Amino acid sequence: MGVADSKPPRSTAGSGRIVISVDAMGGDRGPAAVIGGCAMSASKNPDIGFILHGRRDELEPLLARRAQLRERCEIRDAEGVVTMDAKPSHVMRKGKDTSMWSAIEAVRSGEAQACVSCGNTGALMAVSMVRLRKLDGVNRPAIACLWPSRNPSGFNMMLDVGADVRADEDDLLQYALMGASYARNGLGLESPRVGLLNVGTEEHKGRAELKVANEMLDQRQSLGGYKYVGFVEGGDIPSDRVDVIVTDGFTGNVALKTGEGTAGLIRDFLGEAFKATPLSRIAALLAMTSLRRLSKRIDPRRVNGGVFLGLNGTVVKSHGSADATGVSAAIKLAFKLAQSGFNQRLAERLASAALPGNDPASREAGNGNIE
Amino acid sequence: MGVADSKPPRSTAGSGRIVISVDAMGGDRGPAAVIGGCAMSASKNPDIGFILHGRRDELEPLLARRAQLRERCEIRDAEGVVTMDAKPSHVMRKGKDTSMWSAIEAVRSGEAQACVSCGNTGALMAVSMVRLRKLDGVNRPAIACLWPSRNPSGFNMMLDVGADVRADEDDLLQYALMGASYARNGLGLESPRVGLLNVGTEEHKGRAELKVANEMLDQRQSLGGYKYVGFVEGGDIPSDRVDVIVTDGFTGNVALKTGEGTAGLIRDFLGEAFKATPLSRIAALLAMTSLRRLSKRIDPRRVNGGVFLGLNGTVVKSHGSADATGVSAAIKLAFKLAQSGFNQRLAERLASAALPGNDPASREAGNGNIE
Repeated sequence: MGVADSKPPRSTAGSGRIVISVDAMGGDRGPAAVIGGCAMSASKNPDIGFILHGRRDELEPLLARRAQLRERCEIRDAEGVVTMDAKPSHVMRKGKDTSMWSAIEAVRSGEAQACVSCGNTGALMAVSMVRLRKLDGVNRPAIACLWPSRNPSGFNMMLDVGADVRADEDDLLQYALMGASYARNGLGLESPRVGLLNVGTEEHKGRAELKVANEMLDQRQSLGGYKYVGFVEGGDIPSDRVDVIVTDGFTGNVALKTGEGTAGLIRDFLGEAFKATPLSRIAALLAMTSLRRLSKRIDPRRVNGGVFLGLNGTVVKSHGSADATGVSAAIKLAFKLAQSGFNQRLAERLASAALPGNDPASREAGNGNIE
Repeated sequence: MGVADSKPPRSTAGSGRIVISVDAMGGDRGPAAVIGGCAMSASKNPDIGFILHGRRDELEPLLARRAQLRERCEIRDAEGVVTMDAKPSHVMRKGKDTSMWSAIEAVRSGEAQACVSCGNTGALMAVSMVRLRKLDGVNRPAIACLWPSRNPSGFNMMLDVGADVRADEDDLLQYALMGASYARNGLGLESPRVGLLNVGTEEHKGRAELKVANEMLDQRQSLGGYKYVGFVEGGDIPSDRVDVIVTDGFTGNVALKTGEGTAGLIRDFLGEAFKATPLSRIAALLAMTSLRRLSKRIDPRRVNGGVFLGLNGTVVKSHGSADATGVSAAIKLAFKLAQSGFNQRLAERLASAALPGNDPASREAGNGNIE
């Protein structure tokens, strides 16, 4: 307790590097997977440093054999762990001694440029809101995730996928602005195509707030620097019709998990199909290279990392069940966003959007992309 | 116009058979696909007859070469066609001359035991509500669909997938009762496991009405003849944790289409993977039998047919883009439900559920299943 009240000591993990603050304790697989992910990232990226938050006596042994990581990483001892079933409101009141809180705190103090956690999403968002605060003009922050698609980049992006179960028309417009900005910087799309998720593409369909938002998103295309394609359906999420899918956090979360679940089901069925007969076993051997490429295209670990949008600081939520590869993907995403100064650009975009007539889209797009 | 006001002539399609009333005009592929589906069903099932609704001059030529179907089918001329973008309220007021209206009317009059349409879902539900009326005690009818899963039967069922964009706690409880009854009769499960779709499995998560419904579904387990497993997430939809997934029509529709879209994406990627190299092309040949079996397991045409629950009559909504195989699957489903007297059982179940203490679950389960 008390971490929040005194300025933490200057991190030794930096030395000119971009420092990622990592909650080492939150995931389903424990600190070994998280530290494995950090080690993978450290070996690939010489410009990255870490502050690891968690129980020192558990983390020290895991670092002992990882010299490359050890020298670019600082451990910050935190006794408490936020469990997956902890209530966000409880963590907000009583969670100051947790690794999650400590990880967010290092972003707030400026010691780290981004935070990564595999922990409880609701608690992570709650602590982020309390400590980092919302960007000016943002009502509800959102979580954006990437999604395998038929687009040339291989991805679409969807938000909100779980920050808040509600969203009114104003929130949906902000999601469009934030999502478009992330797509410009994160996917390298000068004028991203934005769609609003609904149960049909006709204008009279869906809930009342969607009909209002449909008009608002249409009117703000120029201001927001995006192209509005209108309503899209669940089937369009993996399509090449759209780059940014806007929806409320309840629907987005169900869609995300349904997509993951369906992909998992097919992957398992495919595995069974290849084991079914001797001939199919030979076939699996022959097709191995191609199947590995397929597997990589739809591997959820590759797109691991929900980005919290709308806060004064970059927070990446890794999947709770992420292994080292998944954690490393989330760290890579956090690094890229920190390196590009994305959050500063987003703040400017939102400030500009509040002033009708000011259109900074061309300026931002000309600034180079983070990929 | 005027079909609704005068009793239609006695159908000649019956002669001891179960008669399915088919809207021949509504689908994306036009009447050829629908009549192709009817012909497939007629050749497999000697106990089925049809009343086909649509433009006689278009339907007659399509029947000319299908002698087996022709002799068990009656055409009922209807000039109007409900388009996919028609407003349900407009069809309700002005749609009396349409093939869809006429198809529902044949169920209402008792000439047919079930109706199948590939047309506009909203309009089909609206016309069904107006002409067939809701079952006693039902507030919002629902659409239930089957879903490929890891369950021994190969399927789960979800409702509502698009009858209404809203559902309060009372509606969700009714969906549970209706879904459990359908699963008992349609999937042959004596005590189906029911889950409530949410963004987490913890009891404090989700929208307010879900927390209330969570308690209500738990309390009615014995009365409804189901086992309540609590909250489930999108990833559980294709799992073996649950048989009946209860949700509102907005979320259910998005989940359904997201699942279909994801399966389509992977199927396309898989096809590309097998064409990538000469070796993978050989592999595809060797694995063909196994891959066909896989393809069949996840083929959306196999599970084609959303059933409208909560009406005085059985209506099956086929996918708008269904080909002959898909239409035939929907007809098969309609036939099975009509044969089992499912709708009568559902009405009894809902009437009993209104009387606390009366538990007809054992009686219904002992009555034999339709599969």
